[in-house]
Amino acid sequence: MNLRTDSERIIKDAISASLPDTAVINALKGEDLSGGRLLLVSIGKAAWTMAKAACDVLGSMVQEGIVITKYGHSKGSLPHVKIYEAGHPVPDKNSFDATEEAIRLVSGLSDKDKVLFLISGGGSALFEKPLVSYEELENITKQLLSSGASIVEINTIRKRLSAVKGGKFAKLCEPAQVFSVVLSDIIGDPLDMIASGPAYPDSSTSCEAEGIIKKYGIAISKEAEQLLKVDTPHNLRNVKTKVTGSVTQLCRSAESTCRALGYEPIVLTTSLSCEAREAGSFLGSIAEHHNSAGKAIAFIAGGETVVHLKGSGKGGRNQELALSAAIKLSGLNNAALFSIGSDGTDGPTDAAGGYVDGSTVSVLRNKGIDVYEMLENNDAYNALKESGGLIVTGPTGTNVNDLTVLLLRE
Amino acid sequence: MNLRTDSERIIKDAISASLPDTAVINALKGEDLSGGRLLLVSIGKAAWTMAKAACDVLGSMVQEGIVITKYGHSKGSLPHVKIYEAGHPVPDKNSFDATEEAIRLVSGLSDKDKVLFLISGGGSALFEKPLVSYEELENITKQLLSSGASIVEINTIRKRLSAVKGGKFAKLCEPAQVFSVVLSDIIGDPLDMIASGPAYPDSSTSCEAEGIIKKYGIAISKEAEQLLKVDTPHNLRNVKTKVTGSVTQLCRSAESTCRALGYEPIVLTTSLSCEAREAGSFLGSIAEHHNSAGKAIAFIAGGETVVHLKGSGKGGRNQELALSAAIKLSGLNNAALFSIGSDGTDGPTDAAGGYVDGSTVSVLRNKGIDVYEMLENNDAYNALKESGGLIVTGPTGTNVNDLTVLLLRE
Repeated sequence: MNLRTDSERIIKDAISASLPDTAVINALKGEDLSGGRLLLVSIGKAAWTMAKAACDVLGSMVQEGIVITKYGHSKGSLPHVKIYEAGHPVPDKNSFDATEEAIRLVSGLSDKDKVLFLISGGGSALFEKPLVSYEELENITKQLLSSGASIVEINTIRKRLSAVKGGKFAKLCEPAQVFSVVLSDIIGDPLDMIASGPAYPDSSTSCEAEGIIKKYGIAISKEAEQLLKVDTPHNLRNVKTKVTGSVTQLCRSAESTCRALGYEPIVLTTSLSCEAREAGSFLGSIAEHHNSAGKAIAFIAGGETVVHLKGSGKGGRNQELALSAAIKLSGLNNAALFSIGSDGTDGPTDAAGGYVDGSTVSVLRNKGIDVYEMLENNDAYNALKESGGLIVTGPTGTNVNDLTVLLLRE
Repeated sequence: MNLRTDSERIIKDAISASLPDTAVINALKGEDLSGGRLLLVSIGKAAWTMAKAACDVLGSMVQEGIVITKYGHSKGSLPHVKIYEAGHPVPDKNSFDATEEAIRLVSGLSDKDKVLFLISGGGSALFEKPLVSYEELENITKQLLSSGASIVEINTIRKRLSAVKGGKFAKLCEPAQVFSVVLSDIIGDPLDMIASGPAYPDSSTSCEAEGIIKKYGIAISKEAEQLLKVDTPHNLRNVKTKVTGSVTQLCRSAESTCRALGYEPIVLTTSLSCEAREAGSFLGSIAEHHNSAGKAIAFIAGGETVVHLKGSGKGGRNQELALSAAIKLSGLNNAALFSIGSDGTDGPTDAAGGYVDGSTVSVLRNKGIDVYEMLENNDAYNALKESGGLIVTGPTGTNVNDLTVLLLRE
C-alpha cells in the first residue's frame, strides 16, 4: 500500500462516479420506463451531458425531448431532442421560450406516459416561466432581499409567481408519471432548492406567503397578490425522485474504494462547512489518535469548508485544509490526508486540492519553508508545490462539493 | 434512553475515573511492589491525594515517603510520610529543601528496593535542585526566552543544570527499581515534559546543548559550561512507567460508559486543539450525517480547544463549542452534544461546560435569543443558561483537559 497512490485511486473513482453521465446511467439502472410515450426534459448546467447519457441508455425509447442549458454548454445534437441554450445566472428570453416549449411537450399526456426529468444546478434561471412580468418578479425579489427576508421566505414568494417552480412543473405533467433524476450540487441535497424544485412538493402555504409580504411591507401588483393566494402542490403522487451525483455519492464512492484498498472506511459527514484550517487540525487530531491503532482506517468527510483570507498568498480551501492537517500529521509514519474540489478547481489555482503526509512539514523545513508562516499568509499552493503535494486533475466535468480523506495504514 | 441523563452519567463516570486517587489505585492494580524496602516519592499539585491513595492501598508496605506539593494542597499527615509544601509556579527554598530530602531518601538503596514515584503537574517547580545558583538558572532561561529559543531547546539546557530533571532522579535511585505513575495533564502525554521528566530518559545530547548556547549567544558561567558537557541519561533500565488519569483515560471511561448505555462508541481523538466553535461545527456536521443511520453512536473527542475572544460575553471553550454545535443539531430529534472541562471549570464561569440538543436553537429562538449573535459575542454562558444547557459540577479534584461527546440515538 502506498498512501499517495491510494489517494490518486480514491480521487479518480470518486470523480468518475460523480460525473453527470455516470450519475444518470446509475440512476436509470433497474428502472422500467417502457409503457406509453417517453419524453425527456433536461435542465441545468449539466443538462446536455445528462440527456446524452439518457439517450445512449434508452435509445429509441425517447420519443421527444428538450435540453435547456447554459450558453456554450451544448456539445451537439441529440436524436429527437430540441436543444436550447439560455441565460445564466440571469434568465433571458431563451429561458422563457425554452420553458414554454417544455410545458407544451408535457401537455396532454396519458397516465401511461412518462417524463424523464433530469435536473442539475443552474436550473432556477434556465427553467422559468414567470406568472407576472419578469420586471415585477425581479422588483419583488430585490425588495425582499433588501428587507432582510430569508432565502426560505424569498422562495415561498417566488414559487407562487412561477408556472414551473415549487412542484408546479410536475403538476403540469399529470397524469403522466415523472421520473426525476437530480444531480445535487447543494450540501444536504435540499430538493426544493435545486433548480427551485420544479418536481418537488412545496410545503409552504398561501397564508405564510401573505404574511411575508405584510411583514416586510413589500409593494406588489394586484395580479401578484392574487397569485400568492394560490397554493403550490403539497403532494405529488406522479413523481419518483432519485438524487445522484451529490457529495453523498462522492463520499459513498470514496468509501467503496477505501474498502477495496483494505481500509476500514468511516464516513464522518457529508456536510462539512467549518473553517478549512480548523477542519484540517481536527482531522489531524484524529490521525494522532488512530495512527497507532494497528489497523488501516479511512476517515471520509464531504462538504465545503470556508477560508477567511488574511494573507496575500495563493491557495484554495482544500489546499489550506491539507496544509493545516500536515502540522499534526508531521512525523507520523502511516498517515496521509488529501482534500479536493470535485470540479478540479480549488480557489484561484490550477490545482484541485492538496495531499500531505507525515513527511510534508520536514520536507518543507529542509527547504527553509515554515508551514505556520505559509498558512498565516494563505499560501498553501506554494507550500504544497514545494512538498510535491499539489493535486492537479484539470476540469472534471462535475461539481459536487469537496472530498477530504484521511488515510491511516497499519 | 434520555440524552441528557446519559450525558450526566458519562460525565460522572469519566471524572471519577480520572481522579488522582482512582488513577493511582488503578495503576497499582496487578503490580507487585514487595521484596526489599518500598519508598514513596510523590510530587506535583496532586501529590498529596496520590500519596494518600497509595498509602491506603499499600498500607504498611510503604516504609518511608515524601510528598512535595503546592502551598495549601496538603490535607493532613500520612503514615511514615514527610509532607512538604513549596512554591509554584516559582520554586522557593522549600522546593529545594524538599527535593534534597527526596534525594537523601533514595540514596544507598539496593537492587531489591523499590521507589514508588508519583508524578503530577506542577512538578517542574516543586521538584528541583539546580546545579548552578538559582539566580543563574533563571537568568539563562530569560536569555533563551528572549532570544526566541523553542521550549525543546530551553529544556535541553535546563535539564543539564538540574540534579533531578531529565531522568536524573531515576538515576539517583539506582540500583533500586522505580515504578513511576504519571498523572498527565498535557495533551499527548509527553513524559519528558510532565514535571520535566525526572524519571524519563532524555534524548538530547551535550553537543546539541552547546550548539543552542552558541546559536543564541547566551552568556553563562564556567560552572554552567561544564555542566552542559555532561550527558543526561539516555536509557533508564530501572524505571517502569504507567501514564494514568490523562485525557486518554477520560475518553476511555466515556467510551466504556457509552457502550454500557447502548451506544457504539468511536473515540475520534484525544488531542483536539482547534478553535472551539469550529470543532462544534465539525461535530455538528457529523451529527447531520449519522442522525439517520438507524443506530446509537457516540463520537468522543478529548483535548483542549481554543477561543479567540472577539465579544464581551461570558463563556468558556466548552460552552462555546457546544453552542456552535447546537446550530447544526437544530431540528435533529435524536442528537445531543456536551463538552466539559474535567476540572469542573470552563472559562471564567461557574459552569464546567455545556449541553445542547436538537431543541436548543428553537428554545432560544422562542425566547427571542439569536444563537449566532450570542456566539459572535462569545456569550455562550448566557445562551446555555437560557436553554437549560449549563453543566455545573463544581471543582472535581482532577484536571485532565476536556471531554466532548456527541450522542446519536436510533
